[in-house]
Amino acid sequence: MSDNAALLARREHLLGRNMSTFYQDPVHLVKGEGVWLWDADGRKYLDCYNNVPHVGHCHPRVVEAICRQASTLNTHTRYLHEGILDYVERLTATFDKSLDTAILTCTGSEANDIALRMAQAVTGRTGVIATDHTYHGNTTAVSQLSTRMPPVGGYGGHVRHVPAPDGYRPLGGMPGEAFTDAWAARLEEAIGSLKATPFGFSALIIDPFFANEGFPDLPAGFLQRAAAIVKKAGGLLIADEVQPGFGRTGTHMWGHQRAGIVPDVVTLGKPMGNGHPIGGVVANSETLNAFRKAFRYFNTFGGNPVSCAAAMAVLDVLDDEKLMENAREVGAYAMSGLASLKEKHPIIGNVRGSGLFFGAELVLDRREKTPATDVATRVINQMRERGVLMGKLGVHQNATKIRPPMPFSKEEADLMLSTLDDVLAGL
Amino acid sequence: MSDNAALLARREHLLGRNMSTFYQDPVHLVKGEGVWLWDADGRKYLDCYNNVPHVGHCHPRVVEAICRQASTLNTHTRYLHEGILDYVERLTATFDKSLDTAILTCTGSEANDIALRMAQAVTGRTGVIATDHTYHGNTTAVSQLSTRMPPVGGYGGHVRHVPAPDGYRPLGGMPGEAFTDAWAARLEEAIGSLKATPFGFSALIIDPFFANEGFPDLPAGFLQRAAAIVKKAGGLLIADEVQPGFGRTGTHMWGHQRAGIVPDVVTLGKPMGNGHPIGGVVANSETLNAFRKAFRYFNTFGGNPVSCAAAMAVLDVLDDEKLMENAREVGAYAMSGLASLKEKHPIIGNVRGSGLFFGAELVLDRREKTPATDVATRVINQMRERGVLMGKLGVHQNATKIRPPMPFSKEEADLMLSTLDDVLAGL
Repeated sequence: MSDNAALLARREHLLGRNMSTFYQDPVHLVKGEGVWLWDADGRKYLDCYNNVPHVGHCHPRVVEAICRQASTLNTHTRYLHEGILDYVERLTATFDKSLDTAILTCTGSEANDIALRMAQAVTGRTGVIATDHTYHGNTTAVSQLSTRMPPVGGYGGHVRHVPAPDGYRPLGGMPGEAFTDAWAARLEEAIGSLKATPFGFSALIIDPFFANEGFPDLPAGFLQRAAAIVKKAGGLLIADEVQPGFGRTGTHMWGHQRAGIVPDVVTLGKPMGNGHPIGGVVANSETLNAFRKAFRYFNTFGGNPVSCAAAMAVLDVLDDEKLMENAREVGAYAMSGLASLKEKHPIIGNVRGSGLFFGAELVLDRREKTPATDVATRVINQMRERGVLMGKLGVHQNATKIRPPMPFSKEEADLMLSTLDDVLAGL
Repeated sequence: MSDNAALLARREHLLGRNMSTFYQDPVHLVKGEGVWLWDADGRKYLDCYNNVPHVGHCHPRVVEAICRQASTLNTHTRYLHEGILDYVERLTATFDKSLDTAILTCTGSEANDIALRMAQAVTGRTGVIATDHTYHGNTTAVSQLSTRMPPVGGYGGHVRHVPAPDGYRPLGGMPGEAFTDAWAARLEEAIGSLKATPFGFSALIIDPFFANEGFPDLPAGFLQRAAAIVKKAGGLLIADEVQPGFGRTGTHMWGHQRAGIVPDVVTLGKPMGNGHPIGGVVANSETLNAFRKAFRYFNTFGGNPVSCAAAMAVLDVLDDEKLMENAREVGAYAMSGLASLKEKHPIIGNVRGSGLFFGAELVLDRREKTPATDVATRVINQMRERGVLMGKLGVHQNATKIRPPMPFSKEEADLMLSTLDDVLAGL
């Protein structure tokens, strides 16, 4: 039995069945540094996938911050500690001035679980709208937003879905403002449907970059229209920044800033502590106080000194190494490289993204835009065989998901592109 | 403005109002080591409260494990890694052999949120029973178990409460088997009530030590009776070991083992990583697979290599430093000291607990057992003024909560006892 087969058998025995792995031949990782990963056989992989190690795998400054604080004090927020205050002050300074308070959690799921209740506390209502191809986390309440699998006991009836926006295949077949109009009409319809129930309308929750939906290119003003509709209807706009946040898109620190909107509540997760479990909810103080009054909330590990030290180090490194600028520059370079591959390989139907979150949508024919979902699976697996780790996503699961740690360089983009060129040529 | 006043003002501004602190004069901690904490003025406190730093504040072996793994690799479970497998193997070996698989999370709340869904997946039903003075966590779903505050939108109707068992004031006024009978009857009533609804009965969730309920002394066989009733009714028994687990009670690694029962699902949290955010759910593989099939679950940070290294180091230290044995010995010593204080101070109505989780229930008169809740608050605050940190809890919030890190010594117990003696004498 190979090492991997033995590990997979132990996994099934100890962790249960249906526990997903990446790739037909899963990778057994033992070491990470910057944008590189090593497996147990010493083989090196270029990491074009992982956004959690945001400033690079095992960044020494984040590790040092964790070690220093873990050996000094780690306790909870019922005692006073400057770490959480300094961090929240620094964090909220990157937002619109209306977003000036925060609750720290351990995961993005916990953050979204709170955000939904903030909207309840402010509006007194419980109905929520999300897209039909979203994922906001794994708690019971947040899972109700997902369309992937009806929960035991059924859906609560308080969720309505709007179509995942798709700039490549816009609603009604029309690009630009007509697409914005069509989507806005669906949003208004969903709000109306909730208002006709005892749930009422409390919030629209979206990833302003629509990462899981396939990070579509959207018309200018697309989300501004949605924000206006939500506001007029008396609901809250929740921006889930777990994926586009912390400068990932290159142009702005937050995805909602890139979309030109100011949400009522922002949720944070994955990249926040470079892998250390920390998440958070940012809101204006009125919203946050309404939540704290309606639901007494305490999170034992949330905002502990070690988590705050890790998260602070991430902000330090982001600034000092100018990683948002790097994301903009290298992202643009890599996307232009992908656009060149599109000239060569007809399977690439569309190239899009922003900063270090981009990819190519693979289609069987460019006119019909028939999703090449199985091909995408093969591409991802062949890239892995050649030492480049990436994923796939989108409504049709046919878009490559390229989302490397932020210190990704042009040389590394070249390696990714030349490998992809080879793989596409060999299909 | 004093340092504390300034910190409190910053807290309210940055973290919102209604964010609880301990003590009338909150403690501003800057350093921890073993069972000791230091504030910003260099004052030293004996920590008789914190169970999260289970093997002692900033234990060097746990810190070293975190640093080593954080500087080597930190990623998620969609790649293969031995850390999670070695840990789950080691962890499950401490349970009955029927409890042989686990899901790792970041918090006890996440663990209980999963446990409730495990019961749903196995039974196809959603009704749950908890005690009326419990706390199992902060997610939307888990908060539904609490009686403290009706959520916006109301309770779901799927929860029934049984009275918090109180050995000092047993149901019906009868100790022993009559008390067990009376409580069992209430449990059967709750099950019957759920069975009469479309929710049905899926689970009883309890802390087998009933920590928040005031860690009552219970008749032998008390929970065995409950377990038999739950089983007969086709429900699952969920044991929340967030508080009594990891040897805290001195006699057994797990609270349910001390109570002589084998639950279907066990949830873990606070002490698991000595403060590093990790929690977990242990179950038999059939239950776990039913959950994984019904709810596709992935937790980005859950079971990451750093969390597993921290948790493994906790088990290593527990064993090598014989901390469960220490909890038994020092706990017994401290409780006999408390019993002596009871002879002197009529305000102590009852002394109880197990291992390093024990306390005294304060009453205004021993015959009526009138809870001395305000006195308990004063005692806790005066202890803090004298450099000993403890809390209070229980149905009447009149029991001292003494739950120090596990390396607590007899000398430290003596210091706590003599300080308490002084405080009680000066009331």
